[in-house]
Amino acid sequence: MRVAILGGTGAFGRALAQRLAGGDDEVVIGSRDAERAQAAAAELGVEGATNADAIRGADLAVLAVKADAALATAEEIADALGETPLLSVASALQFSKEGVHPDPEARSLAERVAQRVRAPVAAGLHTLAAANLGAAPPEEDALVCADDPRAKELALELAAKLVAGRAVDAGPLASARALEGLTAVIVNVNRRYKAHAGIRLTGLH
Amino acid sequence: MRVAILGGTGAFGRALAQRLAGGDDEVVIGSRDAERAQAAAAELGVEGATNADAIRGADLAVLAVKADAALATAEEIADALGETPLLSVASALQFSKEGVHPDPEARSLAERVAQRVRAPVAAGLHTLAAANLGAAPPEEDALVCADDPRAKELALELAAKLVAGRAVDAGPLASARALEGLTAVIVNVNRRYKAHAGIRLTGLH
Repeated sequence: MRVAILGGTGAFGRALAQRLAGGDDEVVIGSRDAERAQAAAAELGVEGATNADAIRGADLAVLAVKADAALATAEEIADALGETPLLSVASALQFSKEGVHPDPEARSLAERVAQRVRAPVAAGLHTLAAANLGAAPPEEDALVCADDPRAKELALELAAKLVAGRAVDAGPLASARALEGLTAVIVNVNRRYKAHAGIRLTGLH
Repeated sequence: MRVAILGGTGAFGRALAQRLAGGDDEVVIGSRDAERAQAAAAELGVEGATNADAIRGADLAVLAVKADAALATAEEIADALGETPLLSVASALQFSKEGVHPDPEARSLAERVAQRVRAPVAAGLHTLAAANLGAAPPEEDALVCADDPRAKELALELAAKLVAGRAVDAGPLASARALEGLTAVIVNVNRRYKAHAGIRLTGLH
């Protein structure tokens, strides 16, 4: 699979590229700035390009920009993306002194991204911390959701390469509301228990 | 601890009562109809009463009615409840042929319950299936959130008695949005994998 990691110079994008580098997949880090992308890519032994160039020929694009840039970036890349499936991984969080709150919007960020592109959109990987991804695959599951079967299949295929646990089909894209909210739960848990928490599902055979 | 399970004649309420019965806690099943409460309670060897009577003397009340009755029941019991901490366990789901969708409301059901009572409100236990609770404590974690420290502490104490895993503090009451959404994820997973899924957090020491 050829995977374009858009906004791949950030912490999660780099960790994702690092986890995939040296495996069977072709990885290209995208950024607004081609030089930044190439610098980050060179460190990890993968390719680097502008976001639009990174998308060309990719089987799956991962929207790995920060939450506050996700909608604008989706608009910017919509034409380059065409029908290439897009995986949304960001969660809009609100920080307060009582703890981290989930996004107060009724619709998930992934659903709002989907309104801005023609491509089929999946959402997932929200419970994977960059810090847990870098080295060996973590003993966690990775949850993915989508309405489009092909976007879901590619996202599950990618997810399965990232974790020692399962890539789990969490249902329709509307489940992104829950998966994005889980990031808030995990950040709260990390603060409370001084941990790098992840998720496993029990009861699957 | 004396626990009042309001709407305790339903599947989850009965499973909760069954799990606690015979332990160190006093359990009273509440219902709108005292006779139904007493009939359900007699089967499980606990007490039964109207919701208002069940609340009297309880340390913690669990709002175990179905999601579509949660807000109306909260209003009905508000006076009887007074300042007794209330644990909201329901999730408003939307069923469609593409799968189960999380509640489309921007605010969680628990936050809307909290607007209807003077009592401090916690939310939790959303990932515990009645089918997994009945017999031995399941090998799962139970997630709880609240703004009020005492409501959170009591809810965590209750949660710890229900599972073989951990009772996990998931942060402020706003986290209920994510926890309630997880019920949709779990129902989707159960359908897809023919499972009775639950959750464990990884990375906690």
